[in-house]
Amino acid sequence: MAAFVLNVVLGLVGTHLAHAADEDGYDLWLRYRALPAAQKTALAAAATGIAAPDDTPTVRAAAAELKRGLAGMLGRAPDAIPANAKVRAGTIVLARATLPAGLADADAVRRDLASVGSEGYVVRRTRQDGVPVTLIAANSDIGLLYGSFAWLRQLQLGTAPDGIALADKPALPLRVLNHWDNLDRTVERGYAGESIWNWWELPNIIDPRYTDYARANASLGINGSVLNNVNAKAEVLSPAFIAKAAAIANVLRPYGIRVYLSVRWSTPLELKETKTADPLDPAVAAWWARKADEIYRTIPDFGGFLVKANSEGQPGPQDYGRNHADGANMLARALAPHKGIVMWRAFVYSPPAHPNQVSDRAAQAYDQFKPLDGKFDKNVLVQVKNGAIDFQPREPAHPLFGAMPDTPLVMEFQVTKEYLGFATHLVYLGSLFQETLRFDTRAGNQPMTVARVLEGAQDGRVGGIAGVANIGSSRNWTGSTFDQANWYAYGRLAWNPDLDSRAIAREWAGQTFAPDARVVDPVVAMMMRSREAVVDYMTPLGLHHMMGTGHHYGPAPWVDDLARADWNPVYYHRADKNGIGFDRTAKGSNAVAQYAPEVARRFADPATTPPEFLLWFHHLPWDYRMPDGRTLWTDLVAHYDHGVAEVAAMQAEWQRLRPFVDARRFDDVAQRLAQQQREAAWWRDACIAYFQHQSGLPLPAGVRAPAQPLDYYRKQAFPFAPGHG
Amino acid sequence: MAAFVLNVVLGLVGTHLAHAADEDGYDLWLRYRALPAAQKTALAAAATGIAAPDDTPTVRAAAAELKRGLAGMLGRAPDAIPANAKVRAGTIVLARATLPAGLADADAVRRDLASVGSEGYVVRRTRQDGVPVTLIAANSDIGLLYGSFAWLRQLQLGTAPDGIALADKPALPLRVLNHWDNLDRTVERGYAGESIWNWWELPNIIDPRYTDYARANASLGINGSVLNNVNAKAEVLSPAFIAKAAAIANVLRPYGIRVYLSVRWSTPLELKETKTADPLDPAVAAWWARKADEIYRTIPDFGGFLVKANSEGQPGPQDYGRNHADGANMLARALAPHKGIVMWRAFVYSPPAHPNQVSDRAAQAYDQFKPLDGKFDKNVLVQVKNGAIDFQPREPAHPLFGAMPDTPLVMEFQVTKEYLGFATHLVYLGSLFQETLRFDTRAGNQPMTVARVLEGAQDGRVGGIAGVANIGSSRNWTGSTFDQANWYAYGRLAWNPDLDSRAIAREWAGQTFAPDARVVDPVVAMMMRSREAVVDYMTPLGLHHMMGTGHHYGPAPWVDDLARADWNPVYYHRADKNGIGFDRTAKGSNAVAQYAPEVARRFADPATTPPEFLLWFHHLPWDYRMPDGRTLWTDLVAHYDHGVAEVAAMQAEWQRLRPFVDARRFDDVAQRLAQQQREAAWWRDACIAYFQHQSGLPLPAGVRAPAQPLDYYRKQAFPFAPGHG
Repeated sequence: MAAFVLNVVLGLVGTHLAHAADEDGYDLWLRYRALPAAQKTALAAAATGIAAPDDTPTVRAAAAELKRGLAGMLGRAPDAIPANAKVRAGTIVLARATLPAGLADADAVRRDLASVGSEGYVVRRTRQDGVPVTLIAANSDIGLLYGSFAWLRQLQLGTAPDGIALADKPALPLRVLNHWDNLDRTVERGYAGESIWNWWELPNIIDPRYTDYARANASLGINGSVLNNVNAKAEVLSPAFIAKAAAIANVLRPYGIRVYLSVRWSTPLELKETKTADPLDPAVAAWWARKADEIYRTIPDFGGFLVKANSEGQPGPQDYGRNHADGANMLARALAPHKGIVMWRAFVYSPPAHPNQVSDRAAQAYDQFKPLDGKFDKNVLVQVKNGAIDFQPREPAHPLFGAMPDTPLVMEFQVTKEYLGFATHLVYLGSLFQETLRFDTRAGNQPMTVARVLEGAQDGRVGGIAGVANIGSSRNWTGSTFDQANWYAYGRLAWNPDLDSRAIAREWAGQTFAPDARVVDPVVAMMMRSREAVVDYMTPLGLHHMMGTGHHYGPAPWVDDLARADWNPVYYHRADKNGIGFDRTAKGSNAVAQYAPEVARRFADPATTPPEFLLWFHHLPWDYRMPDGRTLWTDLVAHYDHGVAEVAAMQAEWQRLRPFVDARRFDDVAQRLAQQQREAAWWRDACIAYFQHQSGLPLPAGVRAPAQPLDYYRKQAFPFAPGHG
Repeated sequence: MAAFVLNVVLGLVGTHLAHAADEDGYDLWLRYRALPAAQKTALAAAATGIAAPDDTPTVRAAAAELKRGLAGMLGRAPDAIPANAKVRAGTIVLARATLPAGLADADAVRRDLASVGSEGYVVRRTRQDGVPVTLIAANSDIGLLYGSFAWLRQLQLGTAPDGIALADKPALPLRVLNHWDNLDRTVERGYAGESIWNWWELPNIIDPRYTDYARANASLGINGSVLNNVNAKAEVLSPAFIAKAAAIANVLRPYGIRVYLSVRWSTPLELKETKTADPLDPAVAAWWARKADEIYRTIPDFGGFLVKANSEGQPGPQDYGRNHADGANMLARALAPHKGIVMWRAFVYSPPAHPNQVSDRAAQAYDQFKPLDGKFDKNVLVQVKNGAIDFQPREPAHPLFGAMPDTPLVMEFQVTKEYLGFATHLVYLGSLFQETLRFDTRAGNQPMTVARVLEGAQDGRVGGIAGVANIGSSRNWTGSTFDQANWYAYGRLAWNPDLDSRAIAREWAGQTFAPDARVVDPVVAMMMRSREAVVDYMTPLGLHHMMGTGHHYGPAPWVDDLARADWNPVYYHRADKNGIGFDRTAKGSNAVAQYAPEVARRFADPATTPPEFLLWFHHLPWDYRMPDGRTLWTDLVAHYDHGVAEVAAMQAEWQRLRPFVDARRFDDVAQRLAQQQREAAWWRDACIAYFQHQSGLPLPAGVRAPAQPLDYYRKQAFPFAPGHG
């Protein structure tokens, strides 16, 4: 009976879900699949033609996207309505700055337009000369493109055309992807194949894929792309590579995406064109000024430079006794005449000057950058990772966010899952991004979330947001279906940091699978439990940096033999027979003091520290009493078991979705979930074996012993792991 | 008026060519596009249903391919006819070994079947129980699959169903691809992206692309795949990687493709599981026997090993004072109980033992292997490159083909264009393959082409054929549309070495673009001039090995500073003020003597040496009088200019095809041809500048001077060229 009812319901809703044609993921969330009959009829009446200026590449891109989307959803492309033709019912009218005559609610639209700024849009059903139209209005071309994508998104989600009324603008002016792509096409921390930039064939052979990249990013409002790895090579600034970047810029430009490059500090020295790389040396400054001029001759709207300097062996101004501001400002002055910017990374951590020196990697970026607050030129932004270590499954927000009120800051999120299971483990990062953006720094002793900091709520220094891309030449762009969701979520939060990650997941699932609760609800439920699952089976209770050497895949909490102490997992958890955790209170490194006093006080006391950060801030005995009454050891083990159980639950949830997802994507997700299940158990077993070894404690009652002895886990090696770490 | 006529003609033939939907090349030559109306009607009547046993994966694959192909061409998939159903008109009947009752010409079919062997097929229109059917008959499952593909090929080419009558079998039992794919997914000499084998995600996450790889190869009759680079790593024989190979083997098996691995000679030593790698050491032999047993437990039909030993720094039996036969036979004995084979590469060339020793790289494989003729175990084949240097645009056939009558030989062709312009230059290699296969070795002083040698026409030693694959994870598999043709041509010649390369090109073009003379004729004309064009603008008149160091891209005839003399281009052309060319006659290295006497005599005298091999065998003065009356210098320059002109002609030809090819593929080919044009001119200019510098001669009258001085060409550098050479 249940099956009969299900079939009837399927019939009512539309059987387009059952036996759906295989999809390879290339279309991302821009699938524009045929609508069910009733919706198709309604949309067809509301999309008879497109009336748009045909005068710029961006507006043409908007019109082309509308045509593509509507052709997919309706089965028929709408007509292009000539400029002076009489408007007819169902026209989609694109209006840039000037509204068409005869618009029913022109004043209201003008008021909205006045509030959406240079990149925003207004979309509404209205009447022009008495006939119903859809108006997409903006103050600029790019607003028309963003508005078109926003309208199409609503249609894909099943919203009736009459019900769509939008007025939106981005919260931040700088919303970029950072590609860690090397010039040999490998991708550092890339798990989606090689770089999408075919450097060898550029600039003369242009892969049409670059256009689809631009479309996908424009659909999210991403407006910048740093093309190459922060571990940069001097060659990227050679004439040959500038020409390649220019060719890419030409494809991205109509979609509102500017091109940026990561630059290596020592470039002029390596090219033997200067004798030093001292930023205060006039010859060096002159070289960079000439280089900037050269770049802007072929890329007039070049965005600027991203710089990793004096970090992990990269050269920088400190090599010459200068500081980060000296370096950043020199570059900034080379770019300023061209309106370019410098994004200078704060990801720095140095080995201790003396072997006995107490050193907390988590404290060093603050130590180096806080004193420089306010000392950067106007066109310099300081780019700060979400947390103070390195893109762990969970980190408290970086203290710098609350500590540099006079410097515009850029949030650096990692969309690619370097420490979270590559493209194998299903982990929805929207939860992680949201957690950081909503963190209240309490800077100035008032509510001041990280999002507000980026938006310039402190002293007016408007920053931006960057995502280390998970994009590669894999057919589905990101290596797995659900890793597409992380690109999507990053882009949506870059546009509006206040969006809810669950709502974003619902948008993504509706467009990527179907706007049907029978799919969306379970998919989103699975996504929303996935982040906490990975925290639990990898690094619960504030543990961090326990991944395998180099590739960062798989458990290796035992590693203690790397060249620098602060590369060893044991440095971060300090587990021994007495306890576990890193003391960042005044008794330890005192890194808590880098937070605002109210936050510092909360983190300074284990009793007030949220359990999810406990071992980030505290070194505690194994029998420390947790809020739930259990010992720390028992709780830790319980978290590991919970993580494994969560993955099993995710797998079971996914299996129920088989009737609703095409076989190809279904099977691929299922194979990955099965692998994630095995690996979650591996993480759990290896870590429990190790911590049991360190503590000497018996397993809590009823807990299953690890499948193998500790030595088995220690021996696991992965010589050819992707990501080139 | 002409346009009107053209449009009428287009309308008559079918307008499916005009405004064709963009294609990305993924479907290769298996596009199965909708037929024009008249042909569709005829085929629909002849393809109403498929009656096939449903009892093995291979037969199911055949039925699935028929269904796919017919659904594409007809717009409707034929029905699956149950086993005992009454046959109806238009059924496609698959018959393995046993013919169905009621077959009209059963005796004739049986006679054909008796002649097509274990892999062949018979396809004909006939009657069963009085109704017209298409019979696809074979002695084995794989013959049914090959027959199905052959029938579909004819249909795609527009042959009427009633006109298709085929009886065919492959000439060689071993028809393999060699992937030079590394375990980190890079591809040596690969220009089509990274390896298609996603090693990291194997064995548990299976890319559906592997199935399409299998289909493409089965459509050509390729029946083996060596998965990994001949510059092999010990890890490929680890349990983890054997499991990955087994997972691939499971996908390929239904398509008749066996999996092989390249193995590193020193593996047991590197794994510290033996103390030596001496092939005569019992512990070493025992190790390999155990390793073979291990492999066959998960891959019961594992093909065997491909071995590069004592070549270019790879370890081998000579490190222990043993010879190639000692090494090959030890491995062969490990594989023999499992019916596996060893393909032992003859690509060896050693630096001279003494600095003054005269050494001709082209002579060394013969010197090392000829004495071993007949000394290999039955399941060893010696794999020989098509020429004695290394996959140049033109080489005379390798002398070993006429010199090892008691050893089964494998031809090694290079399908990937290491020395022929990567995936940028359009070069149809069918011409090159055919030239080598039809070369008459005159072994035994009788007609004995290389093809006949491979087929065992000498002492019954049946060999095989191998192609170094040009396949990667690029969407179109091979990096460019026309590089697909080289995969296709290799496969067709592997099946039947007597096929004509122009006929193969027509097949390929008809399936890849459209079976329409307006497309096929110009496309094939372009393809058939392309090989000689590249010879002319790179290395005319028998010149060879002049490509850039490492990456082998671009002209570098001046290089003279590499660690080994026989790596330097100057070693190969020896151009100085007096002359140019490598003397391989008795006055020089006497490598000509490695050919049969009749051939050796022909090549020993410049007057009887074909001009295309002149400078391969002779060092001649610049004023040597060529058959056409011009001096060698003038002729050389003329060849360079002709090559450049040929590319311009190819470009012009392609431009005329714009109305007949989808925009996406058209533009991509056009961009590549434009790049090839620029690079042909670069080759021409650089080589003429250099040879002019060496010879001190003025340019022939009317010849355009190189665009830049010689130093400009010498300075060109390509630090990030693909192919990891």
